[in-house]
Amino acid sequence: MVFKKITLIGTSEESFEAAVEDAVERAEETLENVYWIEVEQMGLELATGREYQAEVEVAFEIQ
Amino acid sequence: MVFKKITLIGTSEESFEAAVEDAVERAEETLENVYWIEVEQMGLELATGREYQAEVEVAFEIQ
Amino acid sequence: MVFKKITLIGTSEESFEAAVEDAVERAEETLENVYWIEVEQMGLELATGREYQAEVEVAFEIQ
Amino acid sequence: MVFKKITLIGTSEESFEAAVEDAVERAEETLENVYWIEVEQMGLELATGREYQAEVEVAFEIQ
Amino acid sequence: MVFKKITLIGTSEESFEAAVEDAVERAEETLENVYWIEVEQMGLELATGREYQAEVEVAFEIQ
Amino acid sequence: MVFKKITLIGTSEESFEAAVEDAVERAEETLENVYWIEVEQMGLELATGREYQAEVEVAFEIQ
Amino acid sequence: MVFKKITLIGTSEESFEAAVEDAVERAEETLENVYWIEVEQMGLELATGREYQAEVEVAFEIQ
Amino acid sequence: MVFKKITLIGTSEESFEAAVEDAVERAEETLENVYWIEVEQMGLELATGREYQAEVEVAFEIQ
Amino acid sequence: MVFKKITLIGTSEESFEAAVEDAVERAEETLENVYWIEVEQMGLELATGREYQAEVEVAFEIQ
Amino acid sequence: MVFKKITLIGTSEESFEAAVEDAVERAEETLENVYWIEVEQMGLELATGREYQAEVEVAFEIQ
Amino acid sequence: MVFKKITLIGTSEESFEAAVEDAVERAEETLENVYWIEVEQMGLELATGREYQAEVEVAFEIQ
Amino acid sequence: MVFKKITLIGTSEESFEAAVEDAVERAEETLENVYWIEVEQMGLELATGREYQAEVEVAFEIQ
Repeated sequence: MVFKKITLIGTSEESFEAAVEDAVERAEETLENVYWIEVEQMGLELATGREYQAEVEVAFEIQ
Repeated sequence: MVFKKITLIGTSEESFEAAVEDAVERAEETLENVYWIEVEQMGLELATGREYQAEVEVAFEIQ
Repeated sequence: MVFKKITLIGTSEESFEAAVEDAVERAEETLENVYWIEVEQMGLELATGREYQAEVEVAFEIQ
Repeated sequence: MVFKKITLIGTSEESFEAAVEDAVERAEETLENVYWIEVEQMGLELATGREYQAEVEVAFEIQ
Repeated sequence: MVFKKITLIGTSEESFEAAVEDAVERAEETLENVYWIEVEQMGLELATGREYQAEVEVAFEIQ
Repeated sequence: MVFKKITLIGTSEESFEAAVEDAVERAEETLENVYWIEVEQMGLELATGREYQAEVEVAFEIQ
Repeated sequence: MVFKKITLIGTSEESFEAAVEDAVERAEETLENVYWIEVEQMGLELATGREYQAEVEVAFEIQ
Repeated sequence: MVFKKITLIGTSEESFEAAVEDAVERAEETLENVYWIEVEQMGLELATGREYQAEVEVAFEIQ
Repeated sequence: MVFKKITLIGTSEESFEAAVEDAVERAEETLENVYWIEVEQMGLELATGREYQAEVEVAFEIQ
Repeated sequence: MVFKKITLIGTSEESFEAAVEDAVERAEETLENVYWIEVEQMGLELATGREYQAEVEVAFEIQ
Repeated sequence: MVFKKITLIGTSEESFEAAVEDAVERAEETLENVYWIEVEQMGLELATGREYQAEVEVAFEIQ
Repeated sequence: MVFKKITLIGTSEESFEAAVEDAVERAEETLENVYWIEVEQMGLELATGREYQAEVEVAFEIQ
């Protein structure tokens, strides 16, 4: 069994929890066998409105 | 006055905030004189449903 | 164009998201041209009630 | 010449050396021009039997 | 569900793999519900013979 | 909006600036919507001539 | 031979050296076979008088 | 003698060396007694043209 | 309640403890409501005599 | 008593344990009073065959 | 085959690239079989003119 | 001008300040043109009496 990890950054106008959710949903739509994610960084873009950002690592099994 | 720090991982099916709360509640039930906690890592187990995990360090005074 | 970064710690009795919000509001009241913030640390003071703390770096353009 | 680095987690029931080997073999089956790997983390799952895990970064040349 | 993490240093006269094993065995003898370990550091004492040392974090469920 | 980050290592016989440029050009040829890069490491291979290397993370929007 | 490491925070009104001493004394009163300590962090509480704090890891042999 | 350190991010359309120069010039215009700077991070914004960014810490003596 | 953190480097010809003291005194002269400091780095300039240096972060409440 | 630490990288065609051994043997041949080593990094060169590499710090007493 | 790594700091009045070059030239004059260097830190002394500094690790094969 | 950095560990039966002093004295006896030292780690051996240890990096100019 081999896992691969990729790095995604989810975004939200509402909260950090929703930004993580954004990344998780994208991962589950496009990858099978997602096992876990780890939150790496959280930030907030403020130049033009608010964009919460959550950088996460996504681990999934590869066949 | 001497403090001790221990590491707990709280879990929740709902959110990271609730996973931290889970660890804090356990700490306050079993330890006296808890002073502060520090969030060390946040992750999400996805293999079988969702389990939000928050690793925290708990500092408490020892007698 | 030059940016400066400063470190603020926002607080809240409710949640980490609200503690970040506290720091962001203070930054936007007192600084112009705030571009982004980065969350550096999250902690919770428990000695006398609950105080959620979020340490953030705030980046803004200087004239 | 440009290299790309990806992150794999090899597993084994026997040892960390074998878990690294598992990741290396997978990398060499599916990628050409693998140049080097770096060991990032080693862990051991114990909840249901033993699974040694080795997280490695794999660097390969891209055409 | 709450996990606790403790830090052990296993030792061996033979190898790092055996030093990790030493810590894992001790953990499993004295703790129930051990879930995983993470290898934190490896060193080798040479002043008086050879002592391989492996510092690991052990995560177990607390009731 | 979701971003993905990948790790590239650009190379050059001339300078670190050119090695970063090498990675950026490759990223822009093969990816759409590249937003930013972060320099992670710089090194110089000297065994057979000079090869400047710049490891960078490339962030791009995924559809 | 297996060692365990725990984290203590010693305090003093005088100096960092005395704060380390405070943690060491507590460790030696309550634990047998203490082998070494490592200084992890030093801080100074100033809100109500002066409290020097030294966070240390204490390694001791377990039977 | 007491020094203070602040964090600036210089920018340039040309190179990282020029982005550092941008931050240094700003520091020397607005601060007296600048002693040294340390480069902390380098990045490149690519969404709308090229903006090289260099985050530096600036140390200066305070009277 | 919002805190701000700044970075100072205190100096002394005598010791690291005195260099920290130098930074703390400066902080308390020029800032109200200083809550705590954290020691970040210690060094010693030897080129022309001895100058002990202590880099500290100073946290104070802002109104 | 003063110790010095140097950094060696041992190599092997067989395993990481053997690569550490390679560095330790070299240290013991050329240095007296070696006290301990710490493993810093492990990697594997794959471009032309297999070369396991272990970067270690070697501490020895100097007279 | 065993490598040794040493730490040099090259300097230049012109640029960081030239400061790295300064360290590389010194390494190649005094050491045989230099394989690679890694850039660890870059800084700029401003107290008396400009001195760019580049701290690098130099890896070379030892016989 | 090129500097070299080496790592020494000074020891003392009295204090961390004295352990740093021990390393500095050794450096100044055996090296010319020592410019600065940085404190990297502090620890305390307790197995057989007390040995304060201070690991420092020593930077000196090489001709």
